[in-house]
Amino acid sequence: MKILFFSGSLRTNSLNKKLIQEAYRISQTLNVDGEVVDLRDYPAPLYDGDIEALGIPDAVINLGRKIRNADALVISTPEYNASISSPLKNIVDWLSRDKPTSLNNKHLLLLAVSPGPLKGVRGLWHTRQPFEALGVHVFPQMMGIQNTENTFDENHQLKEQKDIDNLHKLLGQYIDHIKR
Amino acid sequence: MKILFFSGSLRTNSLNKKLIQEAYRISQTLNVDGEVVDLRDYPAPLYDGDIEALGIPDAVINLGRKIRNADALVISTPEYNASISSPLKNIVDWLSRDKPTSLNNKHLLLLAVSPGPLKGVRGLWHTRQPFEALGVHVFPQMMGIQNTENTFDENHQLKEQKDIDNLHKLLGQYIDHIKR
Amino acid sequence: MKILFFSGSLRTNSLNKKLIQEAYRISQTLNVDGEVVDLRDYPAPLYDGDIEALGIPDAVINLGRKIRNADALVISTPEYNASISSPLKNIVDWLSRDKPTSLNNKHLLLLAVSPGPLKGVRGLWHTRQPFEALGVHVFPQMMGIQNTENTFDENHQLKEQKDIDNLHKLLGQYIDHIKR
Amino acid sequence: MKILFFSGSLRTNSLNKKLIQEAYRISQTLNVDGEVVDLRDYPAPLYDGDIEALGIPDAVINLGRKIRNADALVISTPEYNASISSPLKNIVDWLSRDKPTSLNNKHLLLLAVSPGPLKGVRGLWHTRQPFEALGVHVFPQMMGIQNTENTFDENHQLKEQKDIDNLHKLLGQYIDHIKR
Repeated sequence: MKILFFSGSLRTNSLNKKLIQEAYRISQTLNVDGEVVDLRDYPAPLYDGDIEALGIPDAVINLGRKIRNADALVISTPEYNASISSPLKNIVDWLSRDKPTSLNNKHLLLLAVSPGPLKGVRGLWHTRQPFEALGVHVFPQMMGIQNTENTFDENHQLKEQKDIDNLHKLLGQYIDHIKR
Repeated sequence: MKILFFSGSLRTNSLNKKLIQEAYRISQTLNVDGEVVDLRDYPAPLYDGDIEALGIPDAVINLGRKIRNADALVISTPEYNASISSPLKNIVDWLSRDKPTSLNNKHLLLLAVSPGPLKGVRGLWHTRQPFEALGVHVFPQMMGIQNTENTFDENHQLKEQKDIDNLHKLLGQYIDHIKR
Repeated sequence: MKILFFSGSLRTNSLNKKLIQEAYRISQTLNVDGEVVDLRDYPAPLYDGDIEALGIPDAVINLGRKIRNADALVISTPEYNASISSPLKNIVDWLSRDKPTSLNNKHLLLLAVSPGPLKGVRGLWHTRQPFEALGVHVFPQMMGIQNTENTFDENHQLKEQKDIDNLHKLLGQYIDHIKR
Repeated sequence: MKILFFSGSLRTNSLNKKLIQEAYRISQTLNVDGEVVDLRDYPAPLYDGDIEALGIPDAVINLGRKIRNADALVISTPEYNASISSPLKNIVDWLSRDKPTSLNNKHLLLLAVSPGPLKGVRGLWHTRQPFEALGVHVFPQMMGIQNTENTFDENHQLKEQKDIDNLHKLLGQYIDHIKR
């Protein structure tokens, strides 16, 4: 089974890029073939029907190919204004134009890390809807972590065993569900 | 009272650009000071914290100034994947970083025109949330129109008196509510 | 595979009761063991923590047992005020208190029939959230039908072959997905 | 200006009943005419079109009259399964059938207190939608409090000055907005 991991944030030092690396690292103990990609390497313009009329951008076609080759996705994504991150919404809108849609029938697990006590969870709920509209099986369980000085160490790894255990358990449940 | 009108679509021949022009045209009979702007003239990059660290882009600051000078907004916007359009989400995410937030405490009326029978209404409901999170008073009533060959004429004006009357009535209610 | 079918409406002549019967009837051609239940036969009071303190009502325990014995659910439900029907929300809130939760890890397909052109679809999207919060795998595809005089015949069966075909196809995809 | 206060929970010792009493108490320093009502005193059955056909229940008509006589509402409500509480959804569904709808054009401020760190905020976002569909101006700002042993004292009053100050400030902003 092949799983694609990425973050909904573009920022180099993004908390969600750290968390997705940790999700990938933990998944390697779970007997899956994982790969982390960075949305920065798929630089699509803002969605614009006039651009689309000239052809779907290569970045979109390339990411669509990666997704087609995977069975499942794990995305760790920030909440922007109680809703989906704009870079994530933009790539989803482009991917939906590259037919047949690569996302259709894929599985998705959503994670978030956020500085606030709501842990990005409002945003995760909002993030589900466009994926579900595209035929993605979004895993019901999600995970939000509040970032504090105790969350990541200087190597960008989770410090607290509780967070590691929770993420390990959730990834295990997700992978078991897909394998069924 | 000053109202800013724009579309959540970038495409030149966007249906929602036609509808926002019609909303502006009708508003001119309602004793308000209106202005139509085009998001294409405010070309912000995809939101990226690394870019923000170098300074909020001029396009965002300029649109923020326009919004601060207005009392209210009318936005006609497509539904992309049952959710907010990515160009609209992107400019909202940028505007939220230009403090104090220009959108706070503004009024907003949402419109949509869509080829499908659901009239873009699922997307409008999803579009409310980030605005509300930023302190915008989103008018409860919204309007979705299904685009058919009878919707717009060759001058991009609404053909059906029913659509014109409904839009006139909704704009009147919205303006009355703000003026109270 | 066992599938439980019910409607989110209590009314005797409910459109959604007709549609769930049709979904059941079609499922019988798809090699599954189906059963239709009526929420009227599980008359729980409005959720109230004081009543819960006296014991979970028998109606809730009985429906929970039915759900535990099933692999999957199909619910056809009206939209009330752009949101979940109150009888459906009420039974879900009660079921969530009967631990371990019968709904956890079940599959769910949502249908709607509505007099309006939006076909109850706003309500279906709102209906997903409490189920997903309880660990239900809500099938991404959903189906809304606008009720007209051509929708049901005098035997409460779908008249239009298009509707029958669409429902047959959707049920087939759902059952295939669960069986995987 | 007249404001009606109530809780979305029926339970006698409901946290949200405590919070709504505190909101009422604080509002008395803000020069408004307030009244607290308890949904228990408006015991409507689960919404059922067959019951409606016999006449809207008196409880619904009586609460509708209270709402018509008020300018605005404040509701403190629990989150049940990441969504609106079923008793609140039920009374809203009934109120929507008592025409002309008492809720249309009213203002609403939403509060929540919850044992969990998410403070009931997911539920508040879900709770907005049916009210907005009925023409209610739901105030963009909302307030969620996490209940701990330091939240309420033995007289059911808020213990922490920070919570009192935040609630006072929010109520002040809400009342100022309505009075404009």
